[in-house]
Order: sequence, then C-alpha cells, then structure tokens
Amino acid sequence: MIPDALSFGQYQTVYNFLSLVIASQLFTAVFLLIALPRILPRYRQAITVAIVVCGIAAYHYFRIFDSFKSAFHTAAKGGAGTYTQTSESFNEGYRYVDWLLTVPLLLVELIAVLALTRQLQRRLLVRLVPAAALMIALGYPGEVSGDNSLRGLFGLLSTIPFAYILFVLFVQLSKSLDDQPAGVRGTLSRLRFLLLLSWGVYPIAYLLPILNIAGSDAWVAKQIGYSVADILAKAVYALIIFQVARIKSFDDDKAFAEIESSADELRVTA
Amino acid sequence: MIPDALSFGQYQTVYNFLSLVIASQLFTAVFLLIALPRILPRYRQAITVAIVVCGIAAYHYFRIFDSFKSAFHTAAKGGAGTYTQTSESFNEGYRYVDWLLTVPLLLVELIAVLALTRQLQRRLLVRLVPAAALMIALGYPGEVSGDNSLRGLFGLLSTIPFAYILFVLFVQLSKSLDDQPAGVRGTLSRLRFLLLLSWGVYPIAYLLPILNIAGSDAWVAKQIGYSVADILAKAVYALIIFQVARIKSFDDDKAFAEIESSADELRVTA
Repeated sequence: MIPDALSFGQYQTVYNFLSLVIASQLFTAVFLLIALPRILPRYRQAITVAIVVCGIAAYHYFRIFDSFKSAFHTAAKGGAGTYTQTSESFNEGYRYVDWLLTVPLLLVELIAVLALTRQLQRRLLVRLVPAAALMIALGYPGEVSGDNSLRGLFGLLSTIPFAYILFVLFVQLSKSLDDQPAGVRGTLSRLRFLLLLSWGVYPIAYLLPILNIAGSDAWVAKQIGYSVADILAKAVYALIIFQVARIKSFDDDKAFAEIESSADELRVTA
Repeated sequence: MIPDALSFGQYQTVYNFLSLVIASQLFTAVFLLIALPRILPRYRQAITVAIVVCGIAAYHYFRIFDSFKSAFHTAAKGGAGTYTQTSESFNEGYRYVDWLLTVPLLLVELIAVLALTRQLQRRLLVRLVPAAALMIALGYPGEVSGDNSLRGLFGLLSTIPFAYILFVLFVQLSKSLDDQPAGVRGTLSRLRFLLLLSWGVYPIAYLLPILNIAGSDAWVAKQIGYSVADILAKAVYALIIFQVARIKSFDDDKAFAEIESSADELRVTA
C-alpha cells in the first residue's frame, strides 16, 4: 500500500533513487548506441535489443518520477516537512508495464548474443519469452492488492515460471555454452548469475510489505529495491552483454580486433 | 459516449494501457531505426514507412494519454476514488486522425516489402490506399455520435471498403505471393492474417457500445480494444515486416547473409 505520509528524508531518498535510475538507463542506452559499430554485425541484434530495453526503462522511470512528485506534497518552507498524499495516485502500474515489455527482451538479449543457430535460438525463445511474461502478469494482482495473503499467493504463483526460466537457462542452455569461445564462457556464466542475482532482488522487494516492517519504511525500501534491481538487471547487464559481444567480435575476426585494440595490446599478443 | 464517471480501477486500467501503447510504438520505432542498416537497401522503404507509422502512433498516444488525464478528476486522497469528468473533453478524434494517416501506410508497408515490379505495386496501391482512407473516414461520424443506430449505420458503411481491401489482399495479391522466396511465403501469409485479425479487433471495439454493456464498462473495454489492436496492427506487424525484410535480404545476397549470421548458423547451413 502507498503510505499516507513520508518524512522529508524518505521523500528525498526515493526521489533521488528514481532520478539515478533515469540517468543510468538513459545513458547506458546512449553509450550502446554510439558503440554499436564497434562490434560485428552479427552481435548488433543483441545490443539493439539492449538499447531498446534501457530506453523503455528510462521512459517508465521518467513517468514514475513525475507520478511520485505529484503524489506527495508538503507545505513546509524549503520542502523540509512531512509529505502527505495528494489526490494524484502514485501509479505502481508503470513498473509492471515496463517489466512486461523488458523482462522477455532481457532474455532475447542473452540468447541473441550467444549467436546460436536460428533453430536452437527459436527453441529457447518460445520457452523463455512466454514464461517471462507470465511471471510478470502473475505478480501484478498481488502488488496492487492491499492484502498480504493475496500478495503472498501471487508472489508464489509467479515463482513457478521464474523457476522454469532458471531451469531452461541453467540446465538446457548449458550444453550450448560449451560451444562458445573459451574467453566468453566465463563471462556468459557470470551473466547468468547476474541475472539470477538481480532478478532475485525483485521478489525480496516484493515481499517486504509482508515482513511487518512499518508501512512507510517498507514502501521506501521496496522503491529502493526495485530501483537497484532495475539498474543491475538492465543497465549493468547490458554492459556485460556488450563486453561479451566485443570479445566474440575479436575472436571471430582478427583484422577487426587489430583495428579496435590498443598498440600495447597488440605488442603483448604478438 | 464518454462516461460521466470511472471507478479507480477503470481509470488505472485505461491509464496503464495508454502508457503501454506509447512505450510499444515509440520503442518499436527506435528498434527499427537502429536496425535499418541490417537489411538490404531495397527493403528499407518498407521499414522506413513502418518507423513513421509507429512514430505517428506514439505521437497520438502521448496526446490521448494527456487528454485522458485532464478529462477525468478525483478529489480523493491518493487518487483512490471515483473519477468524474472535468470541463476538458476527452478527444476521440486523435484516434481517427492517427488511423487516417497510418492505416493507408500499413498497406504501403506490406506492398513495399514484397518488392514487386513498380507497375504492379502502383496498381495495388491505387486501390488499397483510397479504400483504407475511406474506411476510416466512414467510421468517424458513427464514433462521435451518441446514437447507436448511427453508429451501426456508419460501422456498416465502413465495412464496404474493408471488404474490398481484403478482396485485393487475399484474391488479387495471391498470385504475386507465389513469386516470393519459399522461406518468406509462409511469413507473408501469416502477415495477411495478422492484418485481418488485428484490424478485426477495431470493429469489435467500435460496436461494444451497441451491445447494451453498461456505459463505463463498454467505454473502458473499447479503449483497451483499440489499444491492443493498435499494438498488434502497428508494432507487432512492423516487427514481422522487418523479419520478412531480413529473410529476403539474406535470400537475395549470400555475402550479406554471411556477415549477419552467426558462426554456428554458417556451420549448419554449409
């Protein structure tokens, strides 16, 4: 539930975290857009999807930021008072609309950068994408209900497709990882763990309101949790995907590697 | 008719669907803009038109979103009350202006990606484009009239050009489809069915107010219907057109296919 009142410190904390997410997503997208020519064309699909994911997240955080600003208000001079709710509702729906679009795309990024055969790629995506959409859709009714047992129930239901995604990534995908170049295998494995780690923050933030923490503290912690998780799962994740695409580009094409590498690097590897 | 009042749930639902459409159209356009160099120049006309269509739709949904926000208002704390009409009117006209521009262009996309002879292309477009514009223009008087029999009458009139478009696509165009590469024929056929399916949602949403569903429920369902149909008919449709353009590009130019394909794919197809 959205708290009736926030302290000045709580208000400032959420406000600054939301702005941090905007800056992180927007400029990760800008960086990747500029860096796109510096990987081989066959990896650009993955990075294009990463740009779109960070862009969609930036759009939603602009909206969330504005929604937050108009949902709370203080009359105190310098803004240093208690913030109470206005007649504008803070829209939690933005997060779910964002995740509905971006979470399936995060899996598309991962599969695209592996550059598997078209057939294998399709086989993985028809499993991962619907499971990801279902996971988000099942979380929403729990999020908007004020009832903690409903929150717990839908949280649990949403864990089923999440477990299935992990099964596909850690069991079914493992065989394909053996075909990846040696320098990439470690990075890709770390990428799966970053996905597990950052996606793991969402259920913790989701369940905070159940843990009997006082209303406004739990809500502020949830906003911080979602914000940090979104930075890890989208911006940081995209930068690691880009690193994988760079290593694979150098591995595929020595001439390209030479143009992109520093003189020092060339001396060492010669 | 625009309902006098919406519940908090109805308001939030429409609000979040409108924002979902903005994100979908805007970032489909961004994706296609970045991916444009990754098809052969001869297919870029189709994708350029697709970018413009999604861009026009994003513009109109920004307007519709703002129009909706200022047309309804609640005084309840946290926004969790009944929303009543303000003195600003919700402008249904945006949708019709959007469709008047985008629906003929959706047919241009389809014909352009086929890369037919200039003569055949012209022969199809002089039939399809005016029929599409007429279809939209005939729907509008029914939409803005509060009278259900007028809504039915103009809905019926607007079906005549729609039927003609289907006749051109499913009868006259079928001969040209046989000349398309085998790998594309299935996708193109599915594309025509997506067009039929997604365009079929509009008349259903249009006719909802006639079906004696209570005023505000019918209106909310109509807004959701139009939103979903716009995502399918523009964003999803554009992504399938892009996929057709990719397959045809690979088919036309083996060297291009090699640059764009993964090493794994090349090993399999070799």
